[in-house]
Amino acid sequence: MVWSFLRQLLLLTALMATTTTAAAAAVPASKALGFFRTVGKLKTLKRTGWVNHDVFEPESVADHMYRMAMLGFLITDAAVDKDRLIKVCLVHDLAEAVVGDITPHDGVSKEEKRRLEETAMKEILGDLGNDAVADELMALWLDYEDGTGPEAAVAKQLDKYEMIVQADEYERTQGKTLDSFFKSTEGYFTHPEVASWARELLDSRAQRLAGSGAEPEAKKPKTG
Amino acid sequence: MVWSFLRQLLLLTALMATTTTAAAAAVPASKALGFFRTVGKLKTLKRTGWVNHDVFEPESVADHMYRMAMLGFLITDAAVDKDRLIKVCLVHDLAEAVVGDITPHDGVSKEEKRRLEETAMKEILGDLGNDAVADELMALWLDYEDGTGPEAAVAKQLDKYEMIVQADEYERTQGKTLDSFFKSTEGYFTHPEVASWARELLDSRAQRLAGSGAEPEAKKPKTG
Repeated sequence: MVWSFLRQLLLLTALMATTTTAAAAAVPASKALGFFRTVGKLKTLKRTGWVNHDVFEPESVADHMYRMAMLGFLITDAAVDKDRLIKVCLVHDLAEAVVGDITPHDGVSKEEKRRLEETAMKEILGDLGNDAVADELMALWLDYEDGTGPEAAVAKQLDKYEMIVQADEYERTQGKTLDSFFKSTEGYFTHPEVASWARELLDSRAQRLAGSGAEPEAKKPKTG
Repeated sequence: MVWSFLRQLLLLTALMATTTTAAAAAVPASKALGFFRTVGKLKTLKRTGWVNHDVFEPESVADHMYRMAMLGFLITDAAVDKDRLIKVCLVHDLAEAVVGDITPHDGVSKEEKRRLEETAMKEILGDLGNDAVADELMALWLDYEDGTGPEAAVAKQLDKYEMIVQADEYERTQGKTLDSFFKSTEGYFTHPEVASWARELLDSRAQRLAGSGAEPEAKKPKTG
């Protein structure tokens, strides 16, 4: 009888401890909603480079990070942790939800930009009320900024490559010439896979500019 | 002499085999570019639900999947493989790049939508020229569609939750009433974390509609 009671008490205590741990590990709902609303700013924040070049309905920062992450899926380099690469791509511009998309032409020094963005990240993540989640997001962002791991190195290449794929699309669909974006990335692509994609894109563009392009075509949406 | 020559020949053969394997594993550059251009369609494809409700400058399908993936970062449920969840979120609407965003109000049956989207996925991925990458993307998409794993179950909840967070934002910023989106998700949120986030959002909305809302506010971008 006593043993049975003690056993039940022990089980109950263990259960309560588990429940408390699980509850403590979750992000508080009001904090989560605040975070999601902050992330939502990236959907309406237009990439400054396109705005400055009068691109019509330019993509959002979220659009850019989305395709970057999808580029990550195609990296087969065994030295790269693909899941981590995809996460670095998703997080690398998160600070822009607070500070906006600062470009080299905005008169803000690289150091000041870094300081502003790090402060923004701390502000966004400090509000989460969950250290484990905040630490993961901060580590991914710092990895990209400080470029220590192989994933950060590839993510930086994908960031620039995604930009020139988009520049090429705006040239084709909006009859623009966006040379500066291609010039700014000359010699930048050193990862073998990204470098081969960049060569393909530059060849395709060169053929188009020479007025003779047969290029890889995207599938066309049928509706929407 | 002969042995030395044979050894070098063997080494060379081994090296060539390695190089061939590595080359075979990569996605051919022209295929990769075609894929990226297809993915790019998701940046300009507007979500049909918002278009049908005359939302001004509605988000893209890429915007939606981006925030869904970011919601995934906040799931702390130990039963869920978070990296896989994030990838399911990124891939689940990929077929829309070809078939567009078909909604329940478009007169297309669920079965026909599924058939169209599966065909589109096969078309997109069949063009990749890399079975390993194509298989991963297809498995993630099928997981979401057929909902067998815990990640698929949570991803479906995030899909609807992200939609109502966005509906609430359009209500607040565009003075709209988008009741139908909230009605269509009543009773849908069963995962404890997503359910708590949904309750918080619905409470916040109810307070706003009652004209008294103090709600979690997003950080404001300072530029851009």
